[in-house]
Amino acid sequence: MAKGAVNAGTLDRDPPASVGDAELRDLTDFACRLADAAGAEILPHFRAPLAVRNKAGLDAYDPVTAADLGSESAMRALIRSAYPDHGIYGEEGGHVQGAGALTWVIDPLDGTRAFITGALHWGVLIALYDGARPILGVMDQPYTRERFVGNRLGARWMREGQQRRLATRACNDLGEAVLYTTAPEMFSDEGESQAFGRLASRVRLTRYGGDCYSYCMLASGYVDLVVESDLSPYDIQALIPIIEAAGGIVTAWTGGAAHYGGAVVAAGSAAIHAAAVRVLQGGSEGR
Amino acid sequence: MAKGAVNAGTLDRDPPASVGDAELRDLTDFACRLADAAGAEILPHFRAPLAVRNKAGLDAYDPVTAADLGSESAMRALIRSAYPDHGIYGEEGGHVQGAGALTWVIDPLDGTRAFITGALHWGVLIALYDGARPILGVMDQPYTRERFVGNRLGARWMREGQQRRLATRACNDLGEAVLYTTAPEMFSDEGESQAFGRLASRVRLTRYGGDCYSYCMLASGYVDLVVESDLSPYDIQALIPIIEAAGGIVTAWTGGAAHYGGAVVAAGSAAIHAAAVRVLQGGSEGR
Repeated sequence: MAKGAVNAGTLDRDPPASVGDAELRDLTDFACRLADAAGAEILPHFRAPLAVRNKAGLDAYDPVTAADLGSESAMRALIRSAYPDHGIYGEEGGHVQGAGALTWVIDPLDGTRAFITGALHWGVLIALYDGARPILGVMDQPYTRERFVGNRLGARWMREGQQRRLATRACNDLGEAVLYTTAPEMFSDEGESQAFGRLASRVRLTRYGGDCYSYCMLASGYVDLVVESDLSPYDIQALIPIIEAAGGIVTAWTGGAAHYGGAVVAAGSAAIHAAAVRVLQGGSEGR
Repeated sequence: MAKGAVNAGTLDRDPPASVGDAELRDLTDFACRLADAAGAEILPHFRAPLAVRNKAGLDAYDPVTAADLGSESAMRALIRSAYPDHGIYGEEGGHVQGAGALTWVIDPLDGTRAFITGALHWGVLIALYDGARPILGVMDQPYTRERFVGNRLGARWMREGQQRRLATRACNDLGEAVLYTTAPEMFSDEGESQAFGRLASRVRLTRYGGDCYSYCMLASGYVDLVVESDLSPYDIQALIPIIEAAGGIVTAWTGGAAHYGGAVVAAGSAAIHAAAVRVLQGGSEGR
């Protein structure tokens, strides 16, 4: 189902790592340093001026590839140095098993189509997987200087010294819900496309073009549902701890675990999640 | 066709105002001060915390209405004070005729659906209409602190003391083009919906969720086409001088003037504009 599902399965360990609160705080701080390094690599390539784009011929410089590779290799170097026994599973470099159960699951630049068109809904995604589930997540947008961070101790938005606790909103009625997805074309499977159409016809407002940013707006209480498909583990893992710590819920359309990617539904409340899953699975009635 | 077309027609004057370069610079500086005032009104309502949203009951405070009204009334007050003989045509307050031909055409908050869902692709739109066409335009995003400004003397992007000249890119082939629109549902008319579908099937990439931001990315050279429908004059007028000064072209789908709103096509080059108009009008072949 998921592009990276087979690969993601190899992340599972029995038993998963046990991480105490103090260690979780340290690891979350480290994830924020990874985000700093990633952002520093990405920003020079965002809206690179024509002079930079053309200096070695039109095709010789691809800003999104340069940003992607620079971001991931900077994060890999920091992880290898600080936690040599941790695994790394990234979009660009694939999966390097660690000695222990902990694995960093990273998307060095999520929302590349937004990025190449100069839009703002993209970010760096960083998760730490304990062998059974992601235990911390960071979404960082270096251009707008926004960071969304979550673990079992809480979820926060940060910008330029400001901080705010994240909390989803309690929408209980599909007819009142705001639904986001990246593009209608992302549901390449006919059944999925019809299921999404059913859901879109039931909600108050459907919006497009969100990528990882939509999930953070759900965690912030401004969006009720994000429904996507064909995700890889690194597209979703960082967002799960953020949404869960904010009071939301993220699963596969089947109701199972979302962290393998595939078809995913995120919701701000259990009620709206259940209603959306019923509609996606073909039930006629959402509450 | 356009929601505000009838109203917009009353903006036309014979002869239109004649504005020299020095006066145009002063008026553009003034438009930037309007944007400052609008942003100061809007920002407190963007992602207003739950505490603010709920303090007078859930329905008593509507952040988008508060931001919209505050933004427009701040701009109207400044215009009345500095240029009492100018007309004002705004989304919220309608059209107040001026003694002369010059009329400020303002959308105090374009992209309200983005705004209420916490997304970033919204802005303040400010145009000055001379009785025949918009002669200056400002698009301001106060949260990201970005400003796009255009008049016949040039187009610039500004942020936190940085400046860059805007220039569209020369895409000559529809098959290479990046197309933006706000949402597929914006084409409520069946013929328009089919026309947009034909165009979307021909381009390299179609993206959604842009609102006014997409037009500025076109002026910046990262997007080749923006195609929308059912626009009001204040949705598009500010964007025309920015795009034209950057080397682009904005017309109605018919090829006529875009500043009355309605169905609009913006393009980064004359070639891609002509190709898009042919496809939208039902021609089978774009170059």
